Amino acid sequence: MSTYQSGGLGSLTIPRPSSVDVSLRWGDVDSYGHVNNCEIVRIIEEARMRWLMSAGVFEGETAVVASHEIGYLRPLHYSLEPVSVEVWTSNIKRSSFEFNFQILDASKRVSVKAVSRMVMFDLAKQESYLIGPALRDHLSGFAGERL
Amino acid sequence: MSTYQSGGLGSLTIPRPSSVDVSLRWGDVDSYGHVNNCEIVRIIEEARMRWLMSAGVFEGETAVVASHEIGYLRPLHYSLEPVSVEVWTSNIKRSSFEFNFQILDASKRVSVKAVSRMVMFDLAKQESYLIGPALRDHLSGFAGERL
Amino acid sequence: MSTYQSGGLGSLTIPRPSSVDVSLRWGDVDSYGHVNNCEIVRIIEEARMRWLMSAGVFEGETAVVASHEIGYLRPLHYSLEPVSVEVWTSNIKRSSFEFNFQILDASKRVSVKAVSRMVMFDLAKQESYLIGPALRDHLSGFAGERL
Amino acid sequence: MSTYQSGGLGSLTIPRPSSVDVSLRWGDVDSYGHVNNCEIVRIIEEARMRWLMSAGVFEGETAVVASHEIGYLRPLHYSLEPVSVEVWTSNIKRSSFEFNFQILDASKRVSVKAVSRMVMFDLAKQESYLIGPALRDHLSGFAGERL
Repeated sequence: MSTYQSGGLGSLTIPRPSSVDVSLRWGDVDSYGHVNNCEIVRIIEEARMRWLMSAGVFEGETAVVASHEIGYLRPLHYSLEPVSVEVWTSNIKRSSFEFNFQILDASKRVSVKAVSRMVMFDLAKQESYLIGPALRDHLSGFAGERL
Repeated sequence: MSTYQSGGLGSLTIPRPSSVDVSLRWGDVDSYGHVNNCEIVRIIEEARMRWLMSAGVFEGETAVVASHEIGYLRPLHYSLEPVSVEVWTSNIKRSSFEFNFQILDASKRVSVKAVSRMVMFDLAKQESYLIGPALRDHLSGFAGERL
Repeated sequence: MSTYQSGGLGSLTIPRPSSVDVSLRWGDVDSYGHVNNCEIVRIIEEARMRWLMSAGVFEGETAVVASHEIGYLRPLHYSLEPVSVEVWTSNIKRSSFEFNFQILDASKRVSVKAVSRMVMFDLAKQESYLIGPALRDHLSGFAGERL
Repeated sequence: MSTYQSGGLGSLTIPRPSSVDVSLRWGDVDSYGHVNNCEIVRIIEEARMRWLMSAGVFEGETAVVASHEIGYLRPLHYSLEPVSVEVWTSNIKRSSFEFNFQILDASKRVSVKAVSRMVMFDLAKQESYLIGPALRDHLSGFAGERL
């Protein structure tokens, strides 16, 4: 997959493309007949949570969204089959990192490209906190080129 | 399954329990930590659309909700696994019918019971229309006891 | 308003019609061009929260929905003006009570009728609790005939 | 307002700050206790539709979102009062333009900054179309500096 870092000699990261299936809902469709752009953000959220939770590296962790950049390339339509969301990371800092997403439609064409910057955030203290070693290892293992 | 009509001698309907998997979303959860009661209605909508569309008997059809009765028996929590929604029909009339739903949680306990009355509705003419033969056959094949 | 208890001689309740304005969102509209039936439940939730919070009797309280009965009488369309939701109570018990709702459309016709049964619910203990005196007084002051 | 173009001598645009009130909903709040980042996108959508519709320049028009850039500066909490959304335009092209948004919280601090690129889009032909004169005049009248 060309969007991933080639990982040349000496690179510490071994990019592994990963993808998450997210089911659509009929209710995602707006009066234009498209999956609404806000629901696309919901689908990205779901891909992110599933990617983190299924890896078992997010128990007890809480992260908030600092920013989204989302490009809507072609309309997405409702289908019984889930959409496939490619997920990788970039710019992993002390307490923040980026998610990169590509939503593929039923014909496997890229419908949406997005980058979300996440900040680890302690809800009780209302302040950011450092990414721990296990989560950092996991995020690094899927690092790639920023969209 | 005891909730389905036993279908005694002479019955024209052969009750067949049917169920539809619906994926949860992290965003379904409200500030109480439960899948929000409004999102439960969304999940029922999704079960209904998938049940109709996967049977291939709803192309070109449009139906609106005339009423919902929903009983929330126990809180539903987010999980990566979809919930299982049991679906059957009742009170099939000339242009309306009822859906019956039971949402099972991860432990296969009934979390939600619901009945939705649907009316076939022509969006252009803004009036109800008769249930056609193919849809009627399908609905009748899954008729059971009203919740 | 005929839907409210007449409050005959000796009645302890003094029915007072009350209504809450709830703003619609363009995103409430589904691919049929109607405010979606699930979003109607969201609008009812919002009317309920605003009715309780603006009276100043719900600080620190938490209540869950035990059931909804919702009748959709006529389609609701998006408008810049908020809808008016009439709110009153019924069947006030030890730890539960009912909300009654009527959503009026732009022409002041009843679009939706609904009854929601609420149970006071302690999220930490995960069990119901008794309605306190201040909330009970407030609920009783708006008691009326069940829809 | 410093974010708006100063409109020096000879400028054809007369920047006028404009703002739209958007009501929050209790259901916008997620399990973190914040107005969810996806619902922020919904709030931006609502500000956009209200801004266009209340000006009377969008009847019969349809526009889709080509991209969003959203910065979440501080968490937004539910309140009975609507949030104020400042709205202005930038980069008005033949068939596309940008919306700029700033959501102010109850203390009038900027909670969210966003830029959305819109494309006029014919739903029947499934292709973009030119911005008409009345809409163009209106958009130009609120042109300012891109966020």
